[in-house]
Amino acid sequence: MPISRFVEYEDASPEVRAVYDDIMESRDVDWINNFWKALAQHPPTLKRTWESLKEVMAPGALDPLVKEMLYLAVSMANTCDYCINSHTAAARKAGMSDDMLHELRAVVGMASETNALVEAYKVELDERLYRAARKT
Amino acid sequence: MPISRFVEYEDASPEVRAVYDDIMESRDVDWINNFWKALAQHPPTLKRTWESLKEVMAPGALDPLVKEMLYLAVSMANTCDYCINSHTAAARKAGMSDDMLHELRAVVGMASETNALVEAYKVELDERLYRAARKT
Amino acid sequence: MPISRFVEYEDASPEVRAVYDDIMESRDVDWINNFWKALAQHPPTLKRTWESLKEVMAPGALDPLVKEMLYLAVSMANTCDYCINSHTAAARKAGMSDDMLHELRAVVGMASETNALVEAYKVELDERLYRAARKT
Amino acid sequence: MPISRFVEYEDASPEVRAVYDDIMESRDVDWINNFWKALAQHPPTLKRTWESLKEVMAPGALDPLVKEMLYLAVSMANTCDYCINSHTAAARKAGMSDDMLHELRAVVGMASETNALVEAYKVELDERLYRAARKT
Amino acid sequence: MPISRFVEYEDASPEVRAVYDDIMESRDVDWINNFWKALAQHPPTLKRTWESLKEVMAPGALDPLVKEMLYLAVSMANTCDYCINSHTAAARKAGMSDDMLHELRAVVGMASETNALVEAYKVELDERLYRAARKT
Amino acid sequence: MPISRFVEYEDASPEVRAVYDDIMESRDVDWINNFWKALAQHPPTLKRTWESLKEVMAPGALDPLVKEMLYLAVSMANTCDYCINSHTAAARKAGMSDDMLHELRAVVGMASETNALVEAYKVELDERLYRAARKT
Repeated sequence: MPISRFVEYEDASPEVRAVYDDIMESRDVDWINNFWKALAQHPPTLKRTWESLKEVMAPGALDPLVKEMLYLAVSMANTCDYCINSHTAAARKAGMSDDMLHELRAVVGMASETNALVEAYKVELDERLYRAARKT
Repeated sequence: MPISRFVEYEDASPEVRAVYDDIMESRDVDWINNFWKALAQHPPTLKRTWESLKEVMAPGALDPLVKEMLYLAVSMANTCDYCINSHTAAARKAGMSDDMLHELRAVVGMASETNALVEAYKVELDERLYRAARKT
Repeated sequence: MPISRFVEYEDASPEVRAVYDDIMESRDVDWINNFWKALAQHPPTLKRTWESLKEVMAPGALDPLVKEMLYLAVSMANTCDYCINSHTAAARKAGMSDDMLHELRAVVGMASETNALVEAYKVELDERLYRAARKT
Repeated sequence: MPISRFVEYEDASPEVRAVYDDIMESRDVDWINNFWKALAQHPPTLKRTWESLKEVMAPGALDPLVKEMLYLAVSMANTCDYCINSHTAAARKAGMSDDMLHELRAVVGMASETNALVEAYKVELDERLYRAARKT
Repeated sequence: MPISRFVEYEDASPEVRAVYDDIMESRDVDWINNFWKALAQHPPTLKRTWESLKEVMAPGALDPLVKEMLYLAVSMANTCDYCINSHTAAARKAGMSDDMLHELRAVVGMASETNALVEAYKVELDERLYRAARKT
Repeated sequence: MPISRFVEYEDASPEVRAVYDDIMESRDVDWINNFWKALAQHPPTLKRTWESLKEVMAPGALDPLVKEMLYLAVSMANTCDYCINSHTAAARKAGMSDDMLHELRAVVGMASETNALVEAYKVELDERLYRAARKT
């Protein structure tokens, strides 16, 4: 029993339609997924989030597939169901194979275990690692 | 005022030394970082964690640099300080540039925002995305 | 498939009924929501939680609507589905409009992003902000 | 031993200075706090984050003080130290009194307890609360 | 609409069957629960996780029931639905009564509140508690 | 640079002193730790939290040591530094040995890994586990 109400294309204001059109064109798809239809209840949040997302996920120093896998890994760490499903789909579209997905899950699981152990043991940072992290 | 106590190589049992030797050889380094020295207080946890980690991070369908970046992204999502520092160092060693780190942080920040929005709006999963995530 | 079992009014002990009566009178409603019926399996937890909640949410330096919105924002940050739904209902009853809800969600999303960026960049606290936070 | 490196005004590019100038003017302050100086290592993230934040925190249906308190409550729920300190300072500047801060903390604490109890008891959503949350 | 696909015993490779047989024998059950059938899509993760879990949950300084209750408490704190259900079942099997479960939930709820208050008030560690935690 | 300000016994109001006296008597100690001195800035929160804690941690179906270890495990899962330190001290006082602490940390680490894997694989709940969790 979710509480979102979705704004469909046919009911959308010109401002919302312009964002929907940009989403469909940028992603080369012919439909809008529920995340955007939920945000469209508040057009400024829709526009700001889409423009931020488009900028962050654009080609850069990181490969688009790597960016999609990072996004998915963070969604798993935050246990967001919709996000895990939608970004699994997006990463598959960007080229993630089944084997890559299984390894990604193994890394997320392992990181969660060692993260928890570091917190449980309250490990102090090594001087050497600190310098390596800063590259100085 | 952390509460870890570290087991140094010279004070370690043969069982712990064997793990330390394997860590140094596998990673081609000549020192042991504090995480392992803290776990060495409980040798079964040291051995099990190192062996799991070595297996998970071994070459596979994912590139080693991509694995390190996924590990770092999860550590940021879990806000584990030691982990962020140590895996920033590890990812740099595996080839992550400054630009790649900045983009990785932007993806983590953006994923945190959209994950929160999905939860706040309680977005329902799209049937199409569900099928795409399952590839059926 | 949730695992709660609910204690209905007609099956409740006098101790539990006394809490149920106080909830209905304090909130001016004629029914008990599932949260309380689940806690009633352990009457000391029911009584203690209701009395704490009643005290914390009572009129004080903060406006009741602001308190409800803070409760809702924390529930979103903790991604607790039942809590988001029930406190959305409570905040609406206390006067929250649709526009206020949309802005609240935008703040929660934005705070999640900047929180993640602060952790990712491991930002040190400014001396000036520290003093301002302490007001000295 | 944080790993941020800060970009000071005197070392900043014109693009970064333009954002710094806008921050100082919008907030009527004569200095830049470390969060922005850390983001300035990656100018696109600095610019995008500041513009999003400015838009989200602008006057709207919610009072600016309420927005600041919501931001602070989310930061407490996310246990982000820098964020708690900086948004405590911001909320005080916007008019939050000591009593208001103490009540806010009590609400955050209480919400964390009841959120945990809801999860522990796996409480099902009431049909009535669902309808009230949707206002139908 | 979950995205796991399960590997049934009859379709499993000899490597996966060996793990399934060990799970059923170690736990004295005649079926495999979905967690393992999902991991079996990636046999190295199945084997590593089962072997780690078996080792961690084996008799030791802590009583098996206490270990199961600690596992359940962490799953509640992490708000993992499947985990809460499966470890409630496991802890019941190990001897947890209804009263013990209710008290466990009360402790998890209380810890969540005081954890949140500690973060909200940013409490400094007492020198005495630090020494007591280290036993020196 | 924490932002708490502590209320010392000598500066405390009679209302706060009464709580401090009860804490010292109940725990058989002659000092007050910082958590309570921080809460004492808001006497109703001090009183309510102490009374809840005293009730929750009182002898019941669970052994006091088990309760302390559950509290500690939740604090580790929530990564609350002060809480981990103070509840490690409390659990030691209640009889937790070094070996018990190491095993507790191993359970917390392992639970975090399998919790993350459950979320990553989006595992569906087994009908049998659901019935076992409900005991029907």
